[in-house]
Amino acid sequence: MAETTLGKYLFERLDQLSIHTIFGLPGDFNLALLDKIYEVDGMRWAGNANELNAAYAADGYSRLKGLACLVTTFGVGELSALNGVAGAYAEHVGLLHVVGVPSISSQAKQLLLHHTLGNGDFTVFHRMSNNISQTTAFISDLSAAPAEIDRCIREAYVNQRPVYLCLPSNFVDLNIPASLLETPIDLSPKRNDPDAQDEVIETVTSLISKATNPVILVDACASRHNCKAEVRALIDATNFPAFVTPMGKSGVNESHPRFGGIYVGTLSEPSVKEAVESADLILSVGALLSDFNTGSFSYSYKTKNIVEFHSDYTKIRQATFPGVQMKEVLKKLLGVVGNYISHYKPVPVPTFNKVAGKGSDMPISQEWLWSRVSTWFREGDVIITETGSAAFGIVQSRFPDNCVGISQVLWGSIGYTVGATLGAVMAAQEIDPKKRVILFVGDGSLQLTVQEISTMCKWHTTPYLFVLNNDGYTIERLIHGETASYNDIQPWKNLKLLELFNAKDSESIRVSTEGEIERLFEDPAFNENSRIRVVEVMLPRMDAPLNLVKQVEFSSKVNSEN
Amino acid sequence: MAETTLGKYLFERLDQLSIHTIFGLPGDFNLALLDKIYEVDGMRWAGNANELNAAYAADGYSRLKGLACLVTTFGVGELSALNGVAGAYAEHVGLLHVVGVPSISSQAKQLLLHHTLGNGDFTVFHRMSNNISQTTAFISDLSAAPAEIDRCIREAYVNQRPVYLCLPSNFVDLNIPASLLETPIDLSPKRNDPDAQDEVIETVTSLISKATNPVILVDACASRHNCKAEVRALIDATNFPAFVTPMGKSGVNESHPRFGGIYVGTLSEPSVKEAVESADLILSVGALLSDFNTGSFSYSYKTKNIVEFHSDYTKIRQATFPGVQMKEVLKKLLGVVGNYISHYKPVPVPTFNKVAGKGSDMPISQEWLWSRVSTWFREGDVIITETGSAAFGIVQSRFPDNCVGISQVLWGSIGYTVGATLGAVMAAQEIDPKKRVILFVGDGSLQLTVQEISTMCKWHTTPYLFVLNNDGYTIERLIHGETASYNDIQPWKNLKLLELFNAKDSESIRVSTEGEIERLFEDPAFNENSRIRVVEVMLPRMDAPLNLVKQVEFSSKVNSEN
Repeated sequence: MAETTLGKYLFERLDQLSIHTIFGLPGDFNLALLDKIYEVDGMRWAGNANELNAAYAADGYSRLKGLACLVTTFGVGELSALNGVAGAYAEHVGLLHVVGVPSISSQAKQLLLHHTLGNGDFTVFHRMSNNISQTTAFISDLSAAPAEIDRCIREAYVNQRPVYLCLPSNFVDLNIPASLLETPIDLSPKRNDPDAQDEVIETVTSLISKATNPVILVDACASRHNCKAEVRALIDATNFPAFVTPMGKSGVNESHPRFGGIYVGTLSEPSVKEAVESADLILSVGALLSDFNTGSFSYSYKTKNIVEFHSDYTKIRQATFPGVQMKEVLKKLLGVVGNYISHYKPVPVPTFNKVAGKGSDMPISQEWLWSRVSTWFREGDVIITETGSAAFGIVQSRFPDNCVGISQVLWGSIGYTVGATLGAVMAAQEIDPKKRVILFVGDGSLQLTVQEISTMCKWHTTPYLFVLNNDGYTIERLIHGETASYNDIQPWKNLKLLELFNAKDSESIRVSTEGEIERLFEDPAFNENSRIRVVEVMLPRMDAPLNLVKQVEFSSKVNSEN
Repeated sequence: MAETTLGKYLFERLDQLSIHTIFGLPGDFNLALLDKIYEVDGMRWAGNANELNAAYAADGYSRLKGLACLVTTFGVGELSALNGVAGAYAEHVGLLHVVGVPSISSQAKQLLLHHTLGNGDFTVFHRMSNNISQTTAFISDLSAAPAEIDRCIREAYVNQRPVYLCLPSNFVDLNIPASLLETPIDLSPKRNDPDAQDEVIETVTSLISKATNPVILVDACASRHNCKAEVRALIDATNFPAFVTPMGKSGVNESHPRFGGIYVGTLSEPSVKEAVESADLILSVGALLSDFNTGSFSYSYKTKNIVEFHSDYTKIRQATFPGVQMKEVLKKLLGVVGNYISHYKPVPVPTFNKVAGKGSDMPISQEWLWSRVSTWFREGDVIITETGSAAFGIVQSRFPDNCVGISQVLWGSIGYTVGATLGAVMAAQEIDPKKRVILFVGDGSLQLTVQEISTMCKWHTTPYLFVLNNDGYTIERLIHGETASYNDIQPWKNLKLLELFNAKDSESIRVSTEGEIERLFEDPAFNENSRIRVVEVMLPRMDAPLNLVKQVEFSSKVNSEN
């Protein structure tokens, strides 16, 4: 009977799901496992610069490919990754976190190994990760191990959450039947209860049949739980105006004639606010209603007719239907919705008016920049914006079709995007090497995770790295401490970064005026992602997108309230 | 009645303990707290480049000053620091981790704030940190808050462990009586039970009175729990030969005539091994018996007469005396030991023979380097060695008196030392600006935490940063995967680092031969810590100290054992 090792089995399973890059760092308890990566054709080990960056990279990769795998070593490695893993938990990102742990016999003897707390407790890190995991597993029995690995992958994928898997170093080379690989892992979501689903469909179609001004509002989980196609079909089938939240951005085609803009409660454009809040039916898909995603909870719908489609339940007005998940119910709805919309006369959608003027010799303002980028983006781009002015600014832009927007609006860990860009650009290499990956990161945030640019250089990736240099933590200055030195950073010579990291083919450019950016954007050579580029964009210190200024007023108030 | 704010109270308390630098990063839930730092004269905010580095820095600072304070923000900030905090837990380092958390009212409403998991659970991060903390506190009642802060500081200091303190943002500006500051925090360790202590003294002196070949073996906790003076006095009073473990290095004066060398079980120099293992009484102070500290548990004493002095108990042969802590019992012993040693004829101590030859034109070897540094070090130096070849190599060196060695032998998190160096060099600025801080870090480890060099530049610190460039993770290559690409790293132009980070007065030098180092060490200008320096030391790829080569043979075996 043909056999394979347990270590190789893990990577074969991931390969079956088109996961071809594994993120992480070597450590003595995972080295034997890493050997197995090289035994699977087409599989590569990213070899990140540190574990937090690796977790961010895995998160970025997963947002393009639906799942990612991170490998760390016991204690030191895994704990460094926790903030990144928690972000994947908060933001619904599928992530398998495999930790190489000491052999079962070392654990049984409670040896005071390095990378332990020195107290013989080998379960403490597992307990810590349990708080930010969909599920966890500890491999201690070879016969059960393949099924445990399958379960972990399934749970991470279906729930789009991190899963924590401990693999003791002595198991990696043990043999299991290769035939287990012949049955694919079942990744289909749990089927909806037919009666509950019928009731949902009946109620929703009844609401639709009576609505004259319904809207579709798309949020983060529509993308994360793989419902973009269903949402697209729903817009096409109904012609209802479609809006997105900041976290939902890129969840629908923003060049679609029925796309109405970005809804952020009171921080919305007035025409968008009016259009959404005057609707008589809201079809909300994949909502994740955090403060920054809702203009500090300032939604103000006129109607009580709200249908929320979620990954694990549906809610209609005040009634909850547990377990009725959106992908199946939306498909079902698509089959019948045509029968309930004959009365509907399409209402006009708000006009997009954030069109930038031609770049002048003026210094660059955030207001101009975020309007100008809309026409530079092109179909298929991956656009990554860091927490802070970039994440707020991007809300003013429009994406062409099939773009992916990545922004950690809920978790909001600064530095996230540099790691996420590495993950996204490695995914892009696998999907289509022409696909552009574009990062906007502040000079402050960049400093937290800068070394991951080195990994981008190692893999000869070709992202655009726009460093928005406003001389420190502008978002924090807006919240509190405009002149406080704790919001200052050491100024770096950012144009030296690619040289330090030994990039083979690179370009480092500084732009200070609108015209300088304009000329870059118009240059055909610059438009091809042929090399890695750093573009340092010089911005006034306290310049920020208007929606950010308003948001931080809310936040400051919340922080000091008794 | 004079009042102060709760936020200022915290920093006043730290100031009373000569803690003048606070480490961490700003985040919106801690900004109001950071304002208070500037209200205390002589207090400064380090402003680190990321939270993991900040935790490492706090650890390094604490190893010189006995305590350190780290401030992070809720969720994203605190989780990034966990690996560093866990290291402080494992290695007995006093650390107060203050987390700025959302206001009590936000928490009560379970708002879906950014930096949460989006599930309304505001206690999850507290629970996670609880696993790696001596104690924790959540401030929710103003009247109890000052006493809680005092308790946290006391527990961190007395136990030399991390303590986790949640401070909701709305409490920072509330007033408390300033008079509370007039009573100092009691930092004395719990007094030993007199009867138990008397019995210990009686038994130990009886063992001493019969021993003809006793030795003193000093480990990490002697330094961490502030017993260096007692150990020094014990050696002077008894003339017993004194040895240290790798983690205990710098715990005694290595130029003392009764210093015998470093004991690491079978990895010791043969003469040291013989001297320790043939003793008829071992007085062990502050032992922390991890694998890398003991040559994989290869201690092999001839005698059963072992006395272990610990920070919270004493053990004599097989009898444990809970609560009899070493500082008090050693002081007591010092008062009487003279009466029990009249019979003792000092035995010779092993000779130190690792004296390097004059540097030649040969490429640098680790063997030569670690012998050569002994005569370059000078009194008062702080010598920091990264996990890997540096931490093993330094064992071959001798320190002058009053040096402090920093090495994370038990926790062993790579990258630790770059952060720790920042902390140590800021402590050195406070203690004596002439004090030299010297780092030896591998090119691989450097990449994990490199941005903390920027903070060193910001504060115009003047450390020596020796980057041992052996083209990747040599320690991992020795353990497993000598030619595996997962042990490769992207090669950096390390001589560009200080330029990138905008150092104002700096020097970057590459050395490839013994002679080149020799000339540096002999240059009086180089010997003054007048500027920040990077010295890149080019080393053969698989060259390593002999004790490291032997250690990894043990470790590889442990990892694969079933």
